[in-house]
Amino acid sequence: MKRARVAFDGAVHRAVEEEGALRLEDGRLVQEDEVVWLPPVTPRTIVALGLNYADHARELAFKAPEEPLVFLKGPNALVGHRAHTRRPADVTYMHYECELGVVIGRPARNVARADAYAYVAGYTVANDYALRDYLENYYRPNLRVKNRDGGTPIGPWLVDAADVPDPMDLALRSMVNGKVTQEGSTRDMIFDVPHLVAYLSGFMTLMPGDVILTGTPDGVVDTAPGDVVVTEIEGIGRLENTIIADDGR
Amino acid sequence: MKRARVAFDGAVHRAVEEEGALRLEDGRLVQEDEVVWLPPVTPRTIVALGLNYADHARELAFKAPEEPLVFLKGPNALVGHRAHTRRPADVTYMHYECELGVVIGRPARNVARADAYAYVAGYTVANDYALRDYLENYYRPNLRVKNRDGGTPIGPWLVDAADVPDPMDLALRSMVNGKVTQEGSTRDMIFDVPHLVAYLSGFMTLMPGDVILTGTPDGVVDTAPGDVVVTEIEGIGRLENTIIADDGR
Repeated sequence: MKRARVAFDGAVHRAVEEEGALRLEDGRLVQEDEVVWLPPVTPRTIVALGLNYADHARELAFKAPEEPLVFLKGPNALVGHRAHTRRPADVTYMHYECELGVVIGRPARNVARADAYAYVAGYTVANDYALRDYLENYYRPNLRVKNRDGGTPIGPWLVDAADVPDPMDLALRSMVNGKVTQEGSTRDMIFDVPHLVAYLSGFMTLMPGDVILTGTPDGVVDTAPGDVVVTEIEGIGRLENTIIADDGR
Repeated sequence: MKRARVAFDGAVHRAVEEEGALRLEDGRLVQEDEVVWLPPVTPRTIVALGLNYADHARELAFKAPEEPLVFLKGPNALVGHRAHTRRPADVTYMHYECELGVVIGRPARNVARADAYAYVAGYTVANDYALRDYLENYYRPNLRVKNRDGGTPIGPWLVDAADVPDPMDLALRSMVNGKVTQEGSTRDMIFDVPHLVAYLSGFMTLMPGDVILTGTPDGVVDTAPGDVVVTEIEGIGRLENTIIADDGR
């Protein structure tokens, strides 16, 4: 099952995919372009990974980490499919990052690697834009560039784990204005999904709806206002986002 | 008004302070030692400050930052007054950090410094334990040591902003097993409360109940299992926490 949250006809609805359209909980069938897409989940906590694909670490000239490099993002960063994301005027680059999002299904604390998949409700696609600016900052990543409102599109769908035969063998792809600029596979993650669930749950309880953004492969390029960025993962979804200039309001 | 959330008689209650006791919403008056104290707020987002007191930055041999050093904490870190916090076996130190917690009262986006106090609901006390271990980590602070379950006691009270004449002139004090080990004043913050609200709301919307932990003055020392740590802020509250060994479960 592919699940979504959408705004339609004055209310927020849960919906499931049905023959390319959306079946709302109240039984109505609506088309994808009739709704405003919301993030498919409302996480209490969002954990993001840095440098979790060896090729991307090389691309950024870092050595591969020995332990997952994790940081938190605020719910303010999430926006849905087809949202607009602002590019602030004071950044030197704004990279898209196509990432597999792992959605937790049960409270997870001290989960063994072998049991980890039982705690996963499903998967989604995220585009965890990476911005960089001139200022060094002792705490990284800098919230001013990495936790802006709307900086992390996510969706369109939460795909049930039962419908994803092997989450560690999915093709990822990004396109800017229709041109493919990033291609990879979840096979190339340094720390795979079971490792991440086991690692994180060893010190922090993960709750249903929480999201782990698992990092991005190489092939990131700068983007600019007006660009339409698509991040797509095989069997999970195709997430579209348009970059606009930040008007400072 | 001093407000609390407590567990009592099989339910969670909101309560207000009344003559040293707690008046529950249902009218019952209960004593402080009859309840389990919960965090007084349930934030969507928790922002923490590093090195926001010049003396503490010197203590740690860092130069004072030119911009607020901010990072996020997960709600999993929060526990209430009189909770126990675990000291993991694999850390080299565990410092208490007495911090003024600013609780947001209205959605705040692009708030001007001059208007910032209108967005503050009130204040609380936090003890944002700082743990350090051997491993370097590209993303800082390391979630494994800084975002553990129960690592940030908070409370006992949310004190209404109207009852705090000048939040930038409050004495802070910490005690370990009854001995005063940290004394300071919110006067010595590098970035004051209005600055922090204006800064953060410039790129991320702050929501009612969100918390800004404003940093700690100098005087941090290592603590060990069995220590009773009290962090206290003048007019805001006296927060007690006991450190226990982490049994790994």
